[in-house]
Amino acid sequence: MSTYYTEILKKSNGNCDIINITEDVSEIVRESSIKNGIVTVFSIGSTTGITTLEFEPGLLKDVPAFMDKILPQFRNYHHNDTWGDGNGHSHLRSALTKTSLTVPFVNSEMTLGTWQQIIFIDFDNRNRTRRIAVQVIGD
Amino acid sequence: MSTYYTEILKKSNGNCDIINITEDVSEIVRESSIKNGIVTVFSIGSTTGITTLEFEPGLLKDVPAFMDKILPQFRNYHHNDTWGDGNGHSHLRSALTKTSLTVPFVNSEMTLGTWQQIIFIDFDNRNRTRRIAVQVIGD
Amino acid sequence: MSTYYTEILKKSNGNCDIINITEDVSEIVRESSIKNGIVTVFSIGSTTGITTLEFEPGLLKDVPAFMDKILPQFRNYHHNDTWGDGNGHSHLRSALTKTSLTVPFVNSEMTLGTWQQIIFIDFDNRNRTRRIAVQVIGD
Repeated sequence: MSTYYTEILKKSNGNCDIINITEDVSEIVRESSIKNGIVTVFSIGSTTGITTLEFEPGLLKDVPAFMDKILPQFRNYHHNDTWGDGNGHSHLRSALTKTSLTVPFVNSEMTLGTWQQIIFIDFDNRNRTRRIAVQVIGD
Repeated sequence: MSTYYTEILKKSNGNCDIINITEDVSEIVRESSIKNGIVTVFSIGSTTGITTLEFEPGLLKDVPAFMDKILPQFRNYHHNDTWGDGNGHSHLRSALTKTSLTVPFVNSEMTLGTWQQIIFIDFDNRNRTRRIAVQVIGD
Repeated sequence: MSTYYTEILKKSNGNCDIINITEDVSEIVRESSIKNGIVTVFSIGSTTGITTLEFEPGLLKDVPAFMDKILPQFRNYHHNDTWGDGNGHSHLRSALTKTSLTVPFVNSEMTLGTWQQIIFIDFDNRNRTRRIAVQVIGD
């Protein structure tokens, strides 16, 4: 049994930018030389999210549209009174989507479905380079 | 420390079918012979979800009703323009619910509450046999 | 590789009480003497949730307001017909927020962002002492 830790860096545009990080995570699992175990993907930052999605152009419009419906950007959030940075919606979307995902792997391959991709979402209202922590554990 | 991997197969009716997989996961933890650790339950497929729920008839109606409210089946999703399979709502419900859950166990017993069950939900619009990946890690 | 298990006990007021458990989890990681790995935080109980949030007064009002909007307390839930305890909304909020979160750590420090805190939420409609399971795995 051993662990292998590294980070993924991604330039993000914010505003519900959805980035497919499946290949990055797959490469990390392979370079870890750990054959069987789990990989935890954790986005560092309280305005981000990690989940799975079929990465196709339609859903890349549908996810932001859904977020705009249940947590609109331009509404009065108490958070915006605290900091004045206008990203209350970003924090709530992150708490809802959550910032962690753990995926099993077998013979160095994650057990994802054919169209099931690991995505990072930046809910904040500005662009930035983002860090995603990846911890591999197994034997 | 060791790992133990297997899969659960379940026939599902789709359309927000909710299946209690707690006993399946409990059995896998016991047959792994690993005493203390964590078990990751991961549903393979981008129109599925894994979470915890008290498994009782009322909530088995309330969960689909809630999903119908926030992500109705019969609305225009861009995903449906891409593929024409009419399951845009299924993909969004899956991305929201997420497809992974990790549960600690101690002395071969998961640390679930008395009424806290592990459930698989099939959000797709058709029936199918589904695969759920289960990876046990510990010592 | 080894595992280290303990539980956090917290008095909660229920009704969307949000409790910052970051320092509790950090201490557990340090006392485990495990340097690199993952920690799984699991709230025991089907009316609770675990996620990450910037823990500031504005968001402590925004999260309950959001929950009241998408899953209001005083509506007819089938669950309430089953048990008559009036907490159908609590169960649905828990299934949505989920009761598990896994966070990587490196050199005994979790890879959280500067303002990213681990929170426990009690969605139930009464006060109680709550148990949160914490399993540390790594080497």
